[in-house]
Amino acid sequence: MGTQDNGEGRRGMGLTNHEAGMEEEEEEMVEMSQMSRRRKTRKEMEEGREEAEVKDEEEKTMSIEKLFDGKPLPGWREQLTFRAMVVSFFLSVMFSFIVMKLNLTTGIIPSLNVAAGLLGFFFIKTWSKALEKTGLLRQAFTRQENTVIQTCVVAASGVAFSGGFGSYLFGMSETIAKQATEADNAQNVKDPGLGWMIGFLFVVSFLGLFSLVPLRKIMIVDYKLIYPSGTATAFLINGFHTPQGAKLAKKQVSILGKCFVSSFLWGFFQWFYTGGDDCGFASFPTLGLKAYENKSFFDFSATYVGVGMICPYIVNISVLLGGILSWGVMWPLIGNKKGSWYPADIPSSSLHSLQGYRVFIGIAMILGDGLYNFLKVFSRTMYSFISVVRSGGSMSTLPVSDDGGSIPTTTTISFDDQRRTEIFLKDQIPKPVAYGGYIVIAVISIATLPHIFPQLKWYYVLVSYIFAPMLAFCNAYGCGLTDWSLASTYGKLAIFIIGAWAGASHGGVLAGLAACGVMMSIVSTASDLMQDFKTGYLTLASPRAMFVSQVIGTAMGCVIAPCVFWLFYKAFNDLGLPDSEYPAPYALVYRNMAILGVEGFSSLPKHCLTLCYIFFAAAIVINLLRDFSGKKIARFIPLPMAMAIPFYIGSYFAIDMCVGSLILFVWETVNKAKADAFAPAVASGLICGDGIWTLPQSILALAKVKPPICMKFLSRKVNVKVDEFIAKLT
Amino acid sequence: MGTQDNGEGRRGMGLTNHEAGMEEEEEEMVEMSQMSRRRKTRKEMEEGREEAEVKDEEEKTMSIEKLFDGKPLPGWREQLTFRAMVVSFFLSVMFSFIVMKLNLTTGIIPSLNVAAGLLGFFFIKTWSKALEKTGLLRQAFTRQENTVIQTCVVAASGVAFSGGFGSYLFGMSETIAKQATEADNAQNVKDPGLGWMIGFLFVVSFLGLFSLVPLRKIMIVDYKLIYPSGTATAFLINGFHTPQGAKLAKKQVSILGKCFVSSFLWGFFQWFYTGGDDCGFASFPTLGLKAYENKSFFDFSATYVGVGMICPYIVNISVLLGGILSWGVMWPLIGNKKGSWYPADIPSSSLHSLQGYRVFIGIAMILGDGLYNFLKVFSRTMYSFISVVRSGGSMSTLPVSDDGGSIPTTTTISFDDQRRTEIFLKDQIPKPVAYGGYIVIAVISIATLPHIFPQLKWYYVLVSYIFAPMLAFCNAYGCGLTDWSLASTYGKLAIFIIGAWAGASHGGVLAGLAACGVMMSIVSTASDLMQDFKTGYLTLASPRAMFVSQVIGTAMGCVIAPCVFWLFYKAFNDLGLPDSEYPAPYALVYRNMAILGVEGFSSLPKHCLTLCYIFFAAAIVINLLRDFSGKKIARFIPLPMAMAIPFYIGSYFAIDMCVGSLILFVWETVNKAKADAFAPAVASGLICGDGIWTLPQSILALAKVKPPICMKFLSRKVNVKVDEFIAKLT
Repeated sequence: MGTQDNGEGRRGMGLTNHEAGMEEEEEEMVEMSQMSRRRKTRKEMEEGREEAEVKDEEEKTMSIEKLFDGKPLPGWREQLTFRAMVVSFFLSVMFSFIVMKLNLTTGIIPSLNVAAGLLGFFFIKTWSKALEKTGLLRQAFTRQENTVIQTCVVAASGVAFSGGFGSYLFGMSETIAKQATEADNAQNVKDPGLGWMIGFLFVVSFLGLFSLVPLRKIMIVDYKLIYPSGTATAFLINGFHTPQGAKLAKKQVSILGKCFVSSFLWGFFQWFYTGGDDCGFASFPTLGLKAYENKSFFDFSATYVGVGMICPYIVNISVLLGGILSWGVMWPLIGNKKGSWYPADIPSSSLHSLQGYRVFIGIAMILGDGLYNFLKVFSRTMYSFISVVRSGGSMSTLPVSDDGGSIPTTTTISFDDQRRTEIFLKDQIPKPVAYGGYIVIAVISIATLPHIFPQLKWYYVLVSYIFAPMLAFCNAYGCGLTDWSLASTYGKLAIFIIGAWAGASHGGVLAGLAACGVMMSIVSTASDLMQDFKTGYLTLASPRAMFVSQVIGTAMGCVIAPCVFWLFYKAFNDLGLPDSEYPAPYALVYRNMAILGVEGFSSLPKHCLTLCYIFFAAAIVINLLRDFSGKKIARFIPLPMAMAIPFYIGSYFAIDMCVGSLILFVWETVNKAKADAFAPAVASGLICGDGIWTLPQSILALAKVKPPICMKFLSRKVNVKVDEFIAKLT
Repeated sequence: MGTQDNGEGRRGMGLTNHEAGMEEEEEEMVEMSQMSRRRKTRKEMEEGREEAEVKDEEEKTMSIEKLFDGKPLPGWREQLTFRAMVVSFFLSVMFSFIVMKLNLTTGIIPSLNVAAGLLGFFFIKTWSKALEKTGLLRQAFTRQENTVIQTCVVAASGVAFSGGFGSYLFGMSETIAKQATEADNAQNVKDPGLGWMIGFLFVVSFLGLFSLVPLRKIMIVDYKLIYPSGTATAFLINGFHTPQGAKLAKKQVSILGKCFVSSFLWGFFQWFYTGGDDCGFASFPTLGLKAYENKSFFDFSATYVGVGMICPYIVNISVLLGGILSWGVMWPLIGNKKGSWYPADIPSSSLHSLQGYRVFIGIAMILGDGLYNFLKVFSRTMYSFISVVRSGGSMSTLPVSDDGGSIPTTTTISFDDQRRTEIFLKDQIPKPVAYGGYIVIAVISIATLPHIFPQLKWYYVLVSYIFAPMLAFCNAYGCGLTDWSLASTYGKLAIFIIGAWAGASHGGVLAGLAACGVMMSIVSTASDLMQDFKTGYLTLASPRAMFVSQVIGTAMGCVIAPCVFWLFYKAFNDLGLPDSEYPAPYALVYRNMAILGVEGFSSLPKHCLTLCYIFFAAAIVINLLRDFSGKKIARFIPLPMAMAIPFYIGSYFAIDMCVGSLILFVWETVNKAKADAFAPAVASGLICGDGIWTLPQSILALAKVKPPICMKFLSRKVNVKVDEFIAKLT
């Protein structure tokens, strides 16, 4: 469903074509397709001409960009139309309302990339069709413009999430402080105010944007990361704008449409059975109740099945391995130590308890992988930079590192890749603008933030900004692999580190919450917008237009989001109270985490830190193995980043993804040509349909229309008792 | 799932090729295919050669019988091998145990046609392969032999059901009589005894067989009834025995295999979630809880989706119409009269209550349709008989009535149909044998039964035997249309009529139960074995071999079933007690019905009889309309028989069937050629896989392995209370 959850990770939305991601996987793919070709010679004799035909057709029309070749490519200024900005503004307001209300009610927020792309298309298309009839249309609606709208809306509504109105920001208020047991003093309380909130967001939100720019090429072109949601969105947008007459593309669009509708209806159908907690298909104990307790089940999410169909096999298998290792082995083992390693009398959701192991071991592994990759890229960039300086050449003409993630020169680059890379690298955002921008905004931020939060010393902010790009890289990298953005997890890390540093007596709770905001904004923006860059890459949108659109969107969001929150805050007096209409559940959770944080790492459960060190090291070792073992072995070594994500979230989505992989695998075995031609369309349809369903779902939630039925799963024993109870009721 | 239920109808199992059934539907089909051909001219340009190719291929290999043309067709004596009888005997014992145990526990019994066909194939194949290796194999295993085994096993295990060991027969015992409130006197009690039970079964069970013989040609060749389960079984058997080298047939078998496995696994998966009453997918309130209460929901039964794919559209739509009329309109309306039309203080499952309307209105409509068709066939047969006698010709050379169900002479008869009809009519069972047999057995039966049950006067039996063939016709006809055998419903009718006739003071309860046995045996045998004849028709098995095999199987059953029951009866002292391991729930239900019956029709709820008259007349009127309106209009008029079946059972299976129709319709729209070639295979796979799953399911039930989880559906309000209750539990 592509949801984000103030308490857990955040899922993005969108889908890649065939650039399966990272060197090893690509080789693997090539090998597989050779294998299947060998198999095919036998099969062709059986299946006759049919398959050959599809192949034939495929060769003619497989390239999406060739279809668009006739269409003029608008310049970057033409992509940024006035109408696009108007539509973006209205959609941003709408989505901000939706996100805000969900923030304050359940805290679970769907990702809106797909909805933004679709609604953007719908509005502009209607508009331009109307204008066309009156003969007033001056500029045709292009897919680039569509992408620009989508980016702008995502940027704006993203602020409503990363602004923490349902989590850290509101957690500072007196309303929430009263509900917490400790730290309810003036030093650790700051009530919401429209002025400082807008200021805070402006100072904080743009950094993520600038931290992105240097990463852009590495992530999209060199690492060829998948960004499933971004790719799905691009596929949808390309589908909408495909010129007439292309047979295969038409078939792809028709299949995409069917899967889209099915997936949407499936989401709708599921909704009826979710009338309560742990109800419905998303709580289906497909592998038994025991496995369900350990968050291992197939949850019938069309989104993640689609994501699994797009991601390379190694990613899906890594995720599954990680899920088995953590939820199948480690957590049950650590759970047995209850009462010895950690107190038995606190709920398991407390960070003092099992949850502490889950969160911090996961973070350690992610940081290990992230650091390794960051240093690898950094050292190579430095190396090439130095050699450029020595030879006196220009930086931009240099190919980035020729291995370690980039395309091996022996691989033939497809027409699509060539064209996309060319466009993607054409309208560069000048490096000085990027680095300069980051430094300028960081300085302003460092100077301003202590005025807003006196408890947040300038050097806390400085330290945050030094580490932020690395964390942003980690998050964007992980999100590119698995579609999960763990922004709130990094936010929790900041709560802990800065909170502990400041200490309880110096307003550490407030400092921690503020630092969480700083970190979350950067990290969340980084992954969200990298998704959008992937969409832009696949729709030939100019990166410069995207960047400007993101800046405009973020600016919109910095004003819209606080205003919408202010409206709620003033309209509902009981905002944030437990039994009210808007309990903002995560605000208290974040405050409690901050209270815990000020006690420092010593407050973590026993052996947790040791385990963190082990997994941090393991991530680095696994990466070294991947890089220094032969390629034949390397492609069987899992990715630590992908392994770590289920540590915290649970392995249900890993199972979904593996189901997607399985479907693709079977399809490829049966008919490789068809699978290659239509799998991305099917996957995009599944992801997008489910994604769009979140819109009516959100509206239903806002209108307080609750699902009528609860599909419940009880063990046979409990069921007997419940049946007796129900018999008494009637 | 293909279940039969002592309290409700009985489902058969098996699938037809393309002989869509009955004149109008056939014309409709032809028209549809012309329409689709017109559509195709457009589509062909789009879809290219692919479709044309499939059509081409289809024309070459569509005929199953052409594939088998090279294989020698064994004579009817060679089809009845000794090994077949040995295998049949062991399978019969096994299935009798399964049926008996289910009889005595839940009362819900799966239909075993498919399992019998499959296991028969498996055993003989293993046997003959082993012999082949040692060089001792004298006779190859043919599909005809396979059909003979299947028929024999079905006949034998059918007796375990129609013998009423879980219903009417055991309902006579003292154990059950003690639990009922009335009629617990010597006159109305007869405890089980091995001797009289075997005698009773021998006297009663063979009549159904002989009553069939004259109907055989009308049902199978002239009316071209579908018998979905019989057809599916035939498809399975043909698939097993298809000679090598046939491309399309191979593909069909491979698709059948895939659907078979999927359907089996689906059944297995569903099982895990049925750990209680109203649990699992079979209780999924797909259309909401309100509709579920009115038995209108999609119950995810692969069997009925498959059945829907085989049945002509008009049957499925009739069933759905009937479901809407009864459960959507009539029962809710009558339900509102609670307290006025019928007492409010009795459970709705009592025949004095709403259930009375359901059962008797349904029966009235079925009887109306059955009577009409019976008279129609009878008068035409008489007419042609008379004209034959007048012209001095021979009966067997005459074509049966040239309309009213037979194939219109203008229709080109396919090679398959020609060949099958030829074989089916070759080894005739001589008419004198059939009529003579029926009369001889009826006389023996009339003479013997009053000795076994003194309360059952000889003229009751005589009257039963006069009406039995008509009811057998009704049931076989309805079963041919929809796969539901309503044997127990006809049994209930006998309970009422004979019970009321005898009166309470003359042992009417026992007389009613015995009459129920007489009627059920005939009616149940008629539909079961007609299914088998359909299988035989489609596998070119000799009808004479089938008949002999049925006689042998019935004889086996008459000995095996009572012995197996006797074993249970002696082994478990608490047999039939409510809280025991074997409560035999339907035994008490039947006894209570008999107690109700002796009070006569006056005991029926208010206006029930009036409504019955109305629906009886309506069935006849609708049939007249169908026959005398133009064919263009007639094909839109629903079939009363099909409409009446959901009256009593509920419309869930109608929804399943319509889902099957819908799938077929969409498939035909997308690709008519492929749908025609593979839909029967898909349908057979779905039906057979689900059918076979009942075997391990039964074994699990016998081994007392209960499903671990209950998937429960609660309204949101109840769920809140249940959640509170569960929280208290833990």
